[in-house]
Amino acid sequence: MKNRYTLIKCDGRARRGRLETVHGTVETPVFMNVGTVGAIKGAVSSSDLEEIGCQIELSNTYHLHVRTGDELIKSLGGLHKFMSWNKPILTDSGGFQVFSLASLRKIKEEGVTFASHIDGHRIFMGPEESMRIQSNLGSTIAMAFDECPDSRSERSYVEESVHRTERWLVRCKKELDRLNSLPDTVNKDQMLFGINQGAVFDDIRIENARYIREMDLDGYAIGGLAVGETHEEMYHILDVTVPQLPQDKPIYLMGVGTPVNIVEAVYRGVDFFDCVYPSRNARHGQLYTHKGKFNIKNAIFASDMSPIEEGCNCPACRRYSRAYIRHLIKAGEMLGLRLCVLHNLYFYNHLMEEIRQAIDEDRFESYRNDMIRSYNETK
Amino acid sequence: MKNRYTLIKCDGRARRGRLETVHGTVETPVFMNVGTVGAIKGAVSSSDLEEIGCQIELSNTYHLHVRTGDELIKSLGGLHKFMSWNKPILTDSGGFQVFSLASLRKIKEEGVTFASHIDGHRIFMGPEESMRIQSNLGSTIAMAFDECPDSRSERSYVEESVHRTERWLVRCKKELDRLNSLPDTVNKDQMLFGINQGAVFDDIRIENARYIREMDLDGYAIGGLAVGETHEEMYHILDVTVPQLPQDKPIYLMGVGTPVNIVEAVYRGVDFFDCVYPSRNARHGQLYTHKGKFNIKNAIFASDMSPIEEGCNCPACRRYSRAYIRHLIKAGEMLGLRLCVLHNLYFYNHLMEEIRQAIDEDRFESYRNDMIRSYNETK
Repeated sequence: MKNRYTLIKCDGRARRGRLETVHGTVETPVFMNVGTVGAIKGAVSSSDLEEIGCQIELSNTYHLHVRTGDELIKSLGGLHKFMSWNKPILTDSGGFQVFSLASLRKIKEEGVTFASHIDGHRIFMGPEESMRIQSNLGSTIAMAFDECPDSRSERSYVEESVHRTERWLVRCKKELDRLNSLPDTVNKDQMLFGINQGAVFDDIRIENARYIREMDLDGYAIGGLAVGETHEEMYHILDVTVPQLPQDKPIYLMGVGTPVNIVEAVYRGVDFFDCVYPSRNARHGQLYTHKGKFNIKNAIFASDMSPIEEGCNCPACRRYSRAYIRHLIKAGEMLGLRLCVLHNLYFYNHLMEEIRQAIDEDRFESYRNDMIRSYNETK
Repeated sequence: MKNRYTLIKCDGRARRGRLETVHGTVETPVFMNVGTVGAIKGAVSSSDLEEIGCQIELSNTYHLHVRTGDELIKSLGGLHKFMSWNKPILTDSGGFQVFSLASLRKIKEEGVTFASHIDGHRIFMGPEESMRIQSNLGSTIAMAFDECPDSRSERSYVEESVHRTERWLVRCKKELDRLNSLPDTVNKDQMLFGINQGAVFDDIRIENARYIREMDLDGYAIGGLAVGETHEEMYHILDVTVPQLPQDKPIYLMGVGTPVNIVEAVYRGVDFFDCVYPSRNARHGQLYTHKGKFNIKNAIFASDMSPIEEGCNCPACRRYSRAYIRHLIKAGEMLGLRLCVLHNLYFYNHLMEEIRQAIDEDRFESYRNDMIRSYNETK
């Protein structure tokens, strides 16, 4: 068996694990850096990802399918080779983008017909298509094709949607098993993570978790959170759902979130995270520190020769001042954005390192309290 | 004397020199990388400049004056400290931008009144103002404040303009001497390069060169070329002008040019170059190789897994393929632009290294012939 998850230890419900894959090892809890089309927003390359301590990159199936084409990428040896990244890659299923970006979508039992957000041409994607695209990309971890119902959807719609997603998951597994057995598959050891859904309905979440845990998947994700519900609702769903998932498999909270969200979710047993906040906020000049976020565009930083955060070892803080970065942003220089993105991604990856160390040393609960207090301090 | 130019050897009229400065040594012939506001277009940082072998950076006085402000930069310790670059910096005089970017300009003997291209506010800049701004920035080399007349101007206008620029040069030298003697000046050893003008009129160019060579400046530039005249006219002006300039001082051809232009100008005795082509062309997907330029957006590169140029050791070619870079450019990812700029700047800096080596080895003439033949080959 080439892929193996080991739960190394627990500190409360917080878990310290290790996922060994054909593309190398991931120490968890971990933050996955989002490289939508095989590149991180802000002119960040795979070399940069290595430098800032990224363990696993996440790419978007939908974007790679409608833009450059997964068949071309397969013919060139797969996404790892294409973007020159030899550590693990997780690809999402395309589902979230189909439901959030594409227009004129029509959901049926077979899958979804929708119009491309690039040129409007009609595309059909169902469980089998999603698996084939992800198999063409050759990612380390494929995500099951799911529908992510709106957190404010009616109970009856959520029930119907979750049951369809369960049937889709069976089809995903069958199709990926078939693809992994073919001779010309890029990564024959591609893993499949199933996705728990159910909006904010405890019983639907729990029933769905019990259903998918029987399927012996490589990992389990919790989807459909951080899409409009409150933080308290999200934490509550984690409290009721995580214990229903297999404890000997990695657990991934999709699309979450703020540094505090991550610490709170680790506290509730989550191992994997991804979020666009660090790069998206960098684009607006919002920078992360252990004492909270600040906006570099603020005039008070015009003559501030200190780094973004004292003691930070990222490529921006090691060499450049707040005054210079502010100047670059104000002048519209791409370098300003790049330095902000590098800092924010380093902050997130380094935060996970702090979390892992705290669990290793049986002091996660006090780390959590200190981190949240410091982060929420008024600057 | 802290600044010293040494003419190491000649190979024909081609010169191999060395300029020692308070910010380090520049081996010539050299290409200066253009960092308008203290940052290279394409998210390129001072760390990147070090990696691609840049010896000297060029920043734009006008942009830094109207945007962030030279007084702020002086209060923070000067441009070197501000942008974290400890090698030489040349600042232009602001004249070229005043005459090309600013609107509503009015030229008088004292200087030029114009409207900022950012917010339209009225600014006055004359020789003294230009020197004060450059002194505030603390660059290694300051350029004299000149007017760059249109290459199609009437002879009578060019004569009048050149004589005014000569009077401005006397005022520049006097003001920079005064500034260099003040106790709180950032770089008390700031050098001054004078600028030869005269459009395409041989006799005006020669008369002006004879005038300025008497002033014992730190270096001499040839301005007002590559602004609309033919390549042959430009080479002819170099043929008649360069021999009139002091041979024991560095000679700088402003704003030039293509790789072939540079080789031809080195052949005619030029030491310093700067040009926006490598970064500007990168923005349009135009990439330089020893076999000429090509456009990475061309469909034939969609599945081309070779580097931009075989054997190139730049950060793009060492790791990424044409197919990937094309994909990034087509997807609008900033990383695509960054990789293209890094390659083109590396190409220019590396071209200068080849030129220096050829002169060192007394084979510049054959290098020139081979380089131009190869560069003009049909791809």
